[in-house]
Amino acid sequence: VSLGDERQILARIAAMAPAPRNSGVVLGIGDDCAIYRPTFGEELVLTTDMVIEDVHFRRHMHPPEAVGYKALARGLSDIAAMGATPRFCLVSLAVAGWVDEAWIDGFYRGLCGLAEQTGTHLAGGDLSHGRQLVCDVVVAGSVVAGEALRRDGAQPGDILYISGTLGGAALGLHSQQGEAWQRHTHPVPRLALGRRLRELGVTACMDLSDGLSLDLQRLCLASKVAALLAEEVPVFPGASLEQALHGGDDYELLFTAPAERALPGRLEDVRLTRIGTIVAGDPGVVTHRGTLLEPLGYDHFRQQPSDS
Amino acid sequence: VSLGDERQILARIAAMAPAPRNSGVVLGIGDDCAIYRPTFGEELVLTTDMVIEDVHFRRHMHPPEAVGYKALARGLSDIAAMGATPRFCLVSLAVAGWVDEAWIDGFYRGLCGLAEQTGTHLAGGDLSHGRQLVCDVVVAGSVVAGEALRRDGAQPGDILYISGTLGGAALGLHSQQGEAWQRHTHPVPRLALGRRLRELGVTACMDLSDGLSLDLQRLCLASKVAALLAEEVPVFPGASLEQALHGGDDYELLFTAPAERALPGRLEDVRLTRIGTIVAGDPGVVTHRGTLLEPLGYDHFRQQPSDS
Repeated sequence: VSLGDERQILARIAAMAPAPRNSGVVLGIGDDCAIYRPTFGEELVLTTDMVIEDVHFRRHMHPPEAVGYKALARGLSDIAAMGATPRFCLVSLAVAGWVDEAWIDGFYRGLCGLAEQTGTHLAGGDLSHGRQLVCDVVVAGSVVAGEALRRDGAQPGDILYISGTLGGAALGLHSQQGEAWQRHTHPVPRLALGRRLRELGVTACMDLSDGLSLDLQRLCLASKVAALLAEEVPVFPGASLEQALHGGDDYELLFTAPAERALPGRLEDVRLTRIGTIVAGDPGVVTHRGTLLEPLGYDHFRQQPSDS
Repeated sequence: VSLGDERQILARIAAMAPAPRNSGVVLGIGDDCAIYRPTFGEELVLTTDMVIEDVHFRRHMHPPEAVGYKALARGLSDIAAMGATPRFCLVSLAVAGWVDEAWIDGFYRGLCGLAEQTGTHLAGGDLSHGRQLVCDVVVAGSVVAGEALRRDGAQPGDILYISGTLGGAALGLHSQQGEAWQRHTHPVPRLALGRRLRELGVTACMDLSDGLSLDLQRLCLASKVAALLAEEVPVFPGASLEQALHGGDDYELLFTAPAERALPGRLEDVRLTRIGTIVAGDPGVVTHRGTLLEPLGYDHFRQQPSDS
């Protein structure tokens, strides 16, 4: 690897890193730790997501900007699901032998662009090397104490909703073109929507990262309820119902609200669709049009039907 | 990999994970994010460190407990260097094909044991797979606002100190036996010492992870000063001066204090040794017994003299 030394790389990253005013970050890149000063009555929500070569991306298929963008977008989507506002991130990167300066610059350009857009301070990280490129991004967000949306609050009788459409990212990974490819490479974290849903008093919320069938099971297990998927699931144009039910990476929000609370059909420029009902029953059991919906979404530790 | 599914692994980890009372963690493993509630007047310090197979450990040389222990110890050492108290950690783990259930259990046993000892709540993480085992640990600590120790506060005239002895970890990696091997596999983060040094008003502090020669250069660069290493550096019994000056992984504290402030020779059961003086001069220049000390410590992006 001829990338200069660690100090030179760090200096280049620090020059690209956004440091928004009022992010709460008192000390950023360069010391043993970053320092964050919370405000009174604030809670921090924290999430971490790995991005691994040949698992989450392929170097000949995904440009470095897209890898960097999505590495941060996945964490921001978790922040959105809590109804929180992003504050800062920490980025650990292990580079492989094939990585050059241009790739690293592209990666951080993609990541920092999204950080800038969303007011996320790149406050620190770690650099190393390995046989495979591995990145781990921690994102911290801020929310009024006690008000974060969780996945364990769904109640029997609640209505089940999703934002946007599903299956677009799975279609895009397959077709590698058009709007679907864009959905796969540049998912938009639903930050504004998450905050609005928190204000509207939804009972449970999570983001769809591993596919509706698996993620809905997780929400039901956490809330100790079952679910009936009775209505039409909104499918991304051109995607199959299979892709919409089991495809991962859509990063839409899945949430529940009491039946008596009327939600608008659109919020923060995103369509909201009622897809079913929460019911009492064996925790985690999801019924789709009368039959059991198997949780076929993405699991790193189970042989995937689509594994090559 | 036959490890059960992600949910089963998570349940096993959650059962081992310490959740100390009063850690401030409101919501731990299982949701999109962990939730931390700061107290009034508190600042959070955050650090992240990767542990990579064949870079930081070898599977046939290092037992899984030692890998897990050290993965957390490295971050705790950064928390110690800020004079902070650990609160929680997030652990991302990408397992390789050779990893079995016993290895994962051993890894988390080592990590959770140290977490328990130090009052660190294992609050969340991510699981994935890769060709190489990669782990990334984020540790968050707490400190009174404005009082964290930084590496940019050293002033000309300050005395330079280190805790303990140096070179033990480098010797241990080479000899693979005795006390030195213990120092390499189970470094003790200097948490109590870091807090005491903060109370005593030291001007700058950092932990020695990549070797004195490189880390002292970093401290001097951050503080825009130079340093004279005039005194004897305390060498771990059996280690060479070379190992003490350039060997990594000792995780002792390097710090500076005004000359008029007398520090004890021992604090929190650790010996403190005066090794030199901070002087005005070209930032980052370190002189050892009249000659320039080259920063030969560990840098992931420079060919190492000892690289195989």
